[in-house]
Amino acid sequence: MFRNQYDSDVTVWSPQGRLHQVEYAIAAVKLGTATVGLKNRDYAVLVALCKPPSELSASQRKLIPIDDHLGISIAGITADARVLSKYLRSECLSYKHSYGSAYPVSRLITNLGNKMQTTTQRYDRRPYGVGLLLAGYDEMGPHIYKVEPSANFFNCKAMTIGSRSQSARTYLERHLKTFNACSNDDIICHGIHAIRSSLPNDEQLSKDDGASQLNITIAIVGKNQPFKILTDQENLVYLNMAKERGTTSMPSKPQEDDDNSSFGDQPGTSTLHDPQVAVATKEN
Amino acid sequence: MFRNQYDSDVTVWSPQGRLHQVEYAIAAVKLGTATVGLKNRDYAVLVALCKPPSELSASQRKLIPIDDHLGISIAGITADARVLSKYLRSECLSYKHSYGSAYPVSRLITNLGNKMQTTTQRYDRRPYGVGLLLAGYDEMGPHIYKVEPSANFFNCKAMTIGSRSQSARTYLERHLKTFNACSNDDIICHGIHAIRSSLPNDEQLSKDDGASQLNITIAIVGKNQPFKILTDQENLVYLNMAKERGTTSMPSKPQEDDDNSSFGDQPGTSTLHDPQVAVATKEN
Amino acid sequence: MFRNQYDSDVTVWSPQGRLHQVEYAIAAVKLGTATVGLKNRDYAVLVALCKPPSELSASQRKLIPIDDHLGISIAGITADARVLSKYLRSECLSYKHSYGSAYPVSRLITNLGNKMQTTTQRYDRRPYGVGLLLAGYDEMGPHIYKVEPSANFFNCKAMTIGSRSQSARTYLERHLKTFNACSNDDIICHGIHAIRSSLPNDEQLSKDDGASQLNITIAIVGKNQPFKILTDQENLVYLNMAKERGTTSMPSKPQEDDDNSSFGDQPGTSTLHDPQVAVATKEN
Amino acid sequence: MFRNQYDSDVTVWSPQGRLHQVEYAIAAVKLGTATVGLKNRDYAVLVALCKPPSELSASQRKLIPIDDHLGISIAGITADARVLSKYLRSECLSYKHSYGSAYPVSRLITNLGNKMQTTTQRYDRRPYGVGLLLAGYDEMGPHIYKVEPSANFFNCKAMTIGSRSQSARTYLERHLKTFNACSNDDIICHGIHAIRSSLPNDEQLSKDDGASQLNITIAIVGKNQPFKILTDQENLVYLNMAKERGTTSMPSKPQEDDDNSSFGDQPGTSTLHDPQVAVATKEN
Amino acid sequence: MFRNQYDSDVTVWSPQGRLHQVEYAIAAVKLGTATVGLKNRDYAVLVALCKPPSELSASQRKLIPIDDHLGISIAGITADARVLSKYLRSECLSYKHSYGSAYPVSRLITNLGNKMQTTTQRYDRRPYGVGLLLAGYDEMGPHIYKVEPSANFFNCKAMTIGSRSQSARTYLERHLKTFNACSNDDIICHGIHAIRSSLPNDEQLSKDDGASQLNITIAIVGKNQPFKILTDQENLVYLNMAKERGTTSMPSKPQEDDDNSSFGDQPGTSTLHDPQVAVATKEN
Amino acid sequence: MFRNQYDSDVTVWSPQGRLHQVEYAIAAVKLGTATVGLKNRDYAVLVALCKPPSELSASQRKLIPIDDHLGISIAGITADARVLSKYLRSECLSYKHSYGSAYPVSRLITNLGNKMQTTTQRYDRRPYGVGLLLAGYDEMGPHIYKVEPSANFFNCKAMTIGSRSQSARTYLERHLKTFNACSNDDIICHGIHAIRSSLPNDEQLSKDDGASQLNITIAIVGKNQPFKILTDQENLVYLNMAKERGTTSMPSKPQEDDDNSSFGDQPGTSTLHDPQVAVATKEN
Amino acid sequence: MFRNQYDSDVTVWSPQGRLHQVEYAIAAVKLGTATVGLKNRDYAVLVALCKPPSELSASQRKLIPIDDHLGISIAGITADARVLSKYLRSECLSYKHSYGSAYPVSRLITNLGNKMQTTTQRYDRRPYGVGLLLAGYDEMGPHIYKVEPSANFFNCKAMTIGSRSQSARTYLERHLKTFNACSNDDIICHGIHAIRSSLPNDEQLSKDDGASQLNITIAIVGKNQPFKILTDQENLVYLNMAKERGTTSMPSKPQEDDDNSSFGDQPGTSTLHDPQVAVATKEN
Repeated sequence: MFRNQYDSDVTVWSPQGRLHQVEYAIAAVKLGTATVGLKNRDYAVLVALCKPPSELSASQRKLIPIDDHLGISIAGITADARVLSKYLRSECLSYKHSYGSAYPVSRLITNLGNKMQTTTQRYDRRPYGVGLLLAGYDEMGPHIYKVEPSANFFNCKAMTIGSRSQSARTYLERHLKTFNACSNDDIICHGIHAIRSSLPNDEQLSKDDGASQLNITIAIVGKNQPFKILTDQENLVYLNMAKERGTTSMPSKPQEDDDNSSFGDQPGTSTLHDPQVAVATKEN
Repeated sequence: MFRNQYDSDVTVWSPQGRLHQVEYAIAAVKLGTATVGLKNRDYAVLVALCKPPSELSASQRKLIPIDDHLGISIAGITADARVLSKYLRSECLSYKHSYGSAYPVSRLITNLGNKMQTTTQRYDRRPYGVGLLLAGYDEMGPHIYKVEPSANFFNCKAMTIGSRSQSARTYLERHLKTFNACSNDDIICHGIHAIRSSLPNDEQLSKDDGASQLNITIAIVGKNQPFKILTDQENLVYLNMAKERGTTSMPSKPQEDDDNSSFGDQPGTSTLHDPQVAVATKEN
Repeated sequence: MFRNQYDSDVTVWSPQGRLHQVEYAIAAVKLGTATVGLKNRDYAVLVALCKPPSELSASQRKLIPIDDHLGISIAGITADARVLSKYLRSECLSYKHSYGSAYPVSRLITNLGNKMQTTTQRYDRRPYGVGLLLAGYDEMGPHIYKVEPSANFFNCKAMTIGSRSQSARTYLERHLKTFNACSNDDIICHGIHAIRSSLPNDEQLSKDDGASQLNITIAIVGKNQPFKILTDQENLVYLNMAKERGTTSMPSKPQEDDDNSSFGDQPGTSTLHDPQVAVATKEN
Repeated sequence: MFRNQYDSDVTVWSPQGRLHQVEYAIAAVKLGTATVGLKNRDYAVLVALCKPPSELSASQRKLIPIDDHLGISIAGITADARVLSKYLRSECLSYKHSYGSAYPVSRLITNLGNKMQTTTQRYDRRPYGVGLLLAGYDEMGPHIYKVEPSANFFNCKAMTIGSRSQSARTYLERHLKTFNACSNDDIICHGIHAIRSSLPNDEQLSKDDGASQLNITIAIVGKNQPFKILTDQENLVYLNMAKERGTTSMPSKPQEDDDNSSFGDQPGTSTLHDPQVAVATKEN
Repeated sequence: MFRNQYDSDVTVWSPQGRLHQVEYAIAAVKLGTATVGLKNRDYAVLVALCKPPSELSASQRKLIPIDDHLGISIAGITADARVLSKYLRSECLSYKHSYGSAYPVSRLITNLGNKMQTTTQRYDRRPYGVGLLLAGYDEMGPHIYKVEPSANFFNCKAMTIGSRSQSARTYLERHLKTFNACSNDDIICHGIHAIRSSLPNDEQLSKDDGASQLNITIAIVGKNQPFKILTDQENLVYLNMAKERGTTSMPSKPQEDDDNSSFGDQPGTSTLHDPQVAVATKEN
Repeated sequence: MFRNQYDSDVTVWSPQGRLHQVEYAIAAVKLGTATVGLKNRDYAVLVALCKPPSELSASQRKLIPIDDHLGISIAGITADARVLSKYLRSECLSYKHSYGSAYPVSRLITNLGNKMQTTTQRYDRRPYGVGLLLAGYDEMGPHIYKVEPSANFFNCKAMTIGSRSQSARTYLERHLKTFNACSNDDIICHGIHAIRSSLPNDEQLSKDDGASQLNITIAIVGKNQPFKILTDQENLVYLNMAKERGTTSMPSKPQEDDDNSSFGDQPGTSTLHDPQVAVATKEN
Repeated sequence: MFRNQYDSDVTVWSPQGRLHQVEYAIAAVKLGTATVGLKNRDYAVLVALCKPPSELSASQRKLIPIDDHLGISIAGITADARVLSKYLRSECLSYKHSYGSAYPVSRLITNLGNKMQTTTQRYDRRPYGVGLLLAGYDEMGPHIYKVEPSANFFNCKAMTIGSRSQSARTYLERHLKTFNACSNDDIICHGIHAIRSSLPNDEQLSKDDGASQLNITIAIVGKNQPFKILTDQENLVYLNMAKERGTTSMPSKPQEDDDNSSFGDQPGTSTLHDPQVAVATKEN
């Protein structure tokens, strides 16, 4: 009697001009663990929480490399994300084959959006149930893009999606102005701080023993830095670095975050600034 | 018991001869932020409100360039608009390739309408949920077209679509007669005044500090002026110009608007009259 | 409980042998503004009301030229009409290309009917929601055809469709016998009188100041007269001519209409009898 | 609660082994005006009532010529009939092209039946809503066939379909034995008498003044007589002839009809016995 | 509330493992008039009741010749039967073309079954609503096959399908043992007796005056006897022969039927034993 | 209110992870008459009950030969079984054509399973409503496979499917260990005993008079023995042999069955051990 | 009234952003018998429970070899698993044909995931109702992957799926750290212990008499060890070995399991370490 008959078909408009199925797919993004993307002048960084479903298995990939100059982090239905990343990878490969250069990020994201739009207008498909943060670097500099199941995408300075991401968003907004001038170490630490604020109070990002099983993954891409997912060792270095630097885990004290912005004063200088190393490791 | 069984399928007529799904798609246009289109003797101008979803991300594009001689502003589902703009761009490219000249605006809009009509008659699609204002210039002069989800389009002297656009419409109707003879600066100021009237009273078009984060975007196309989306600096110039000129933010005093029409007495003369500059910037 | 389960699918017969969806589509025609078609011995004329949706935009096209020897006026869903007119135009072009002559009107209308019939029998489409009056001229003389969403068409002496067209129909029936011998001016005035009778009492066909914004459009086709939509100036001439000639705006006095039929005694002679002019303007 | 769930889909059998949708389509035939077919030894005749929808338009075609040796009269959805007649015409043309002779009537009707059967078994179509009487002549002599929406067809001596055709059927059954030996004039008069009996008492087949606007159409095909739809003048001749000959408009006196059968004693002799004339007119 | 949701789709199993739609299609067979098939050592015979829908039209064909060596009689939806017979005819033609001999009956019936099976498993079709009795003759001797809408077929000694066929079945079972040794005349008379038992008491197989309008049709096929539908004259001969021989119209006295089996003692000898005549008439 | 909405579509999972439509199709197998398959060291045997629907017609085939080295017995929808057997036959033919040898049984059954799986996952089909027992012989020895509508198959030592097959299953389990060493005569007698236990008490496998109308069919395939369906005479021999040997019709005394296993002590020796005879008869 | 309308279509999102149909398909995995996968440094092992449906038939295959370097064990719908294994096999074959080497496991599993994803987004299919554990070995070492109906897959150290697998999972988690250094014999014994903990208390893995009918199957793949399903004899050896070594059947005493890890101290050394033997047997 009270049921809403407009919300079970993506091709049916509600009388208010809404597509409920698209909105429900966006809800699927909120069920995924949080991920954060941010950038300084020359680099874009992705930080993702990844809770493995059990000790027995590795966690699902939250960060997916696409090409040397870009990668994504995801929140929502993993299988949908894989299909989209396969599309992105194939597009980049074709482009490189045809033009001998990296696919400009904004054009790639436009094509992705058009592909995703069709699932919001055809009756025999459902909208993709995944949100993406895309970190890329091209001639226009570093980019963070957010892509929604609605096929909308946003060019961002910093962004976070996924479960309880509102707190991380608050953190990012508070420190937004300092990001551009941050060093790479700083920007990664900001990402860690932001993602930590999306955790319930009693959870920690790594086990007490700092063991090999870390709960975050970090990726960076930028000037002379192909897209690279950090190793567990590197993750640990940054987790410790973030812990040392900050009472920033207390998002109620933004002034301290501002102080943090002076930690790294030289963009492009960080523990992973060596492109050779990065290129060597970028394959995994 | 009271539910309307004719309103969930675009291929089902109501007994009154209506297609409710098309009407609901039109409702989606009303959910978008307002945009205004208007023209003087030689130029067509689009002004759009763009509220960014958060500080973190750039606003969604409300103005989309299609070709040198035309562009659109949108209200409604952005992803749908992108698909339509891709179609328009591809059509213009083909035409230019085949005939070596710009696609005449009225013929292009007719083809767009035919494409959109199919989604109002096929059971496996939904009508596009976006309204377009198209600003173009060809041998017939400047054009403002309005395109609805119903696939109807209208050749307009001035038009506004989107949320609370009724106030802007009232403004436009009141000053309609003066537009043709306006200078470019004036016509842009009129557009700003019109769009401002669609705002709630306590919102302003730009932050108090006149910072780089503006809430409107402006585009112009016309005689010797390829379609150009103004830069934030230019936007700021016009926002200030409109503020100076007018108590026109009070739509209850139309006579003052009439006075405004004497500000710029020479169509084609404006702060952006230099085609070379425009061509150089028209790529973004 | 009382709902009619046979009326939401065009492929479902009601127990009484009716296709409700087709009937509902016919209702859509009644929602359009009225249009009138009529003919004398050598010419066919279309007169249409076009209420622009606002001062800001031009009215939607009610008259659509198809080929030199024919055009249509429409009532109902404009976007559907455009699709059908595109089909007609393409058919005429092919025919002319193949046979070097104009497509005979009756054969063209038969093909149109067959195309429209498929939408009344296939489950994945809806019937077109538009009625057409077609005015054409070929070796058989001038023609007025009426085409319904049911894919039925009728060869007419005079016809009217659209909102409140019953009054116009009464007018036409009353003066039907005089049409054949009318002059072109007279037949156009008859059309204006007929369309006026479909207006509510307090509306007028043109503004008091006789300004450029007229509410009717008129087209004519016939012997040595390619299909031509009259200009606003010409419309004004005929509006005035009709006003002078007639208290015919009072449909209760048909005898006066009969008098009118003597105004023009020479078919083919009118203010627009010059084919050269017509050819020149027929492109718009 | 009481609704019948088996009657809205042509692919669903009722528990009683019936296809309700086919039966409902047959009901559509009963909504059409009546038509009669009958034959003597060498000729087949079709007589149809055609009430024009208004004075303004010609009536819808009830008789449709297919080929020199056959034509149809219809009752029900006109647009469906047109599609079927197009099929028949195309089949005859192909046959003539391949074999140089006229398509044998019984084989043609079998193919038509097979084509119509598919609409009674496929879920995405509806059965055609039209009944046909086919009059043809081939080496086997003259034929009258009745085709139903169920795709059933019947080889008939005489037949009538459409609204209130039961009275006409009674007339035909009463005079059936005399038809074979009738003259052409007689058989046409019989058809007129039969069709008249399907009229309500107060309606007449022609206006009092015997004006050009007749309410019936007559066609004949047979030995050396290509299918010909009579002109209004010829119709009038036969209407008068029928009126003179008979109180046969009173179906309660069949003995008089038997007398009528002696009017024309020479089959093939009639007012339209001249094949040359017929060939000349068969194009319209 | 009590409705059975498993019975309106042929692709839906009931929890009991039944396909109700197939069962309902079988009910359609019971709505057709009865037909009987039986055989002696060398011949197979089909006898069918055919009630013409009215005096005006010939009855629908109950017997359909397929090839020289086989034909069918039908009960149920005639249009479905025609489609199936078209398929059979086309198969036989192809086979004869490829192999120069008649299609073996059992293989042909297997292919027919496979074709019919698809309509019992696909959602977009309905099962054929017709039952067939197939009479054929090949190197294996004479055959009677029964084919059901379920796509099941049965190799039969004698069989009857259609309305009230239970009584005919009882007759056939009672005399089954005598059939093999019957003469052709006897086996035809048995068929007539069987079909008569399916009639209500007050109906007769032929009019009192033994006129040309008979209510049964008979076909025979066998050794040196191509499939032949008997003429009305031959039907009459057998009707009279059956009437003379038997009080067998009283199925309560089976012993008399046993006596009948001695009427004809020589299989292959009958009033239609002349193959030349049969070949000559088999074309109609 | 209590209806289960998950059970009418094969593409819809129940919340418990079940596909009800597949389970219902399995119910269709239980509606078929029982059939038994079993094997000794070198031969596989199928025994099937076949109750003819009436005296008039032969029973439906329960045993279907596929190739020289294999055949099937069926329970459920016969028409579905025919379609599957056609597939199997075609596969065997292609294999033999390509490789010159018999299709290995396990690979063939895997392909059959994959074909059947598609009907359990596609919305436009229904699962096949038939269970198969497949008896085959290849280089791996004799095989009995059971195939279910779920597309599952089982490699079996002995198996039974169909109506009331539980009793037969009990019989088979009780004597399972003796089968491998049985003679061919014994294994056939075991099959007869097993199938008899699935009969209600008062039914018998053959008529009292041991007449030609037997109710079982038997097939054997194995070493030097192409798949052969026994003749009625051979069936009778085995029915009598089984009757003589056993009080084994009383399944409550399994120890006697064990004794039976000594009846035939030499596998491969039986009344039908002559391959030449078998080859000669395998064509029917 | 309480029914959930979002859970019967895989293309419909619930308002909470869930795809109920995918979750229901996952429930189908829980209906299958349990299977365990685990690995040491160089080998991956699969152990599966397989309860045969009856004594008469072999159990359904729980372990399916794909290629020399990998195989799967399954829980859920067997027919679905077969279709997926056919896909995997075909992919491996193509890869080997193209590149001359074994398909890298992680890439193969990605392609499998993409194939499975389509069934979670298309309306005309259902998600596969089967979970897979994949054991493979390539240049990266041994792998255990878990694949879910959601198209998600997980790289695992050890994993278990199927009915009551939670107890087995507890066992695996408790001994996880010891696996890497285990000998092959030990790792297999761990697998047996894990699978045993998923049994109800009163069931045993093999019959008391240690007869040939075992209830588990074991497979191993790794360094110089092509994928091999152990024979019943080998299974028996390991079952006994596991029984001797452990009170590990009591999962409440994990410390004893830790002791077990010292049983085999040399990875790669086991009763089946001989590759030649393995290669010879890997064909079955």
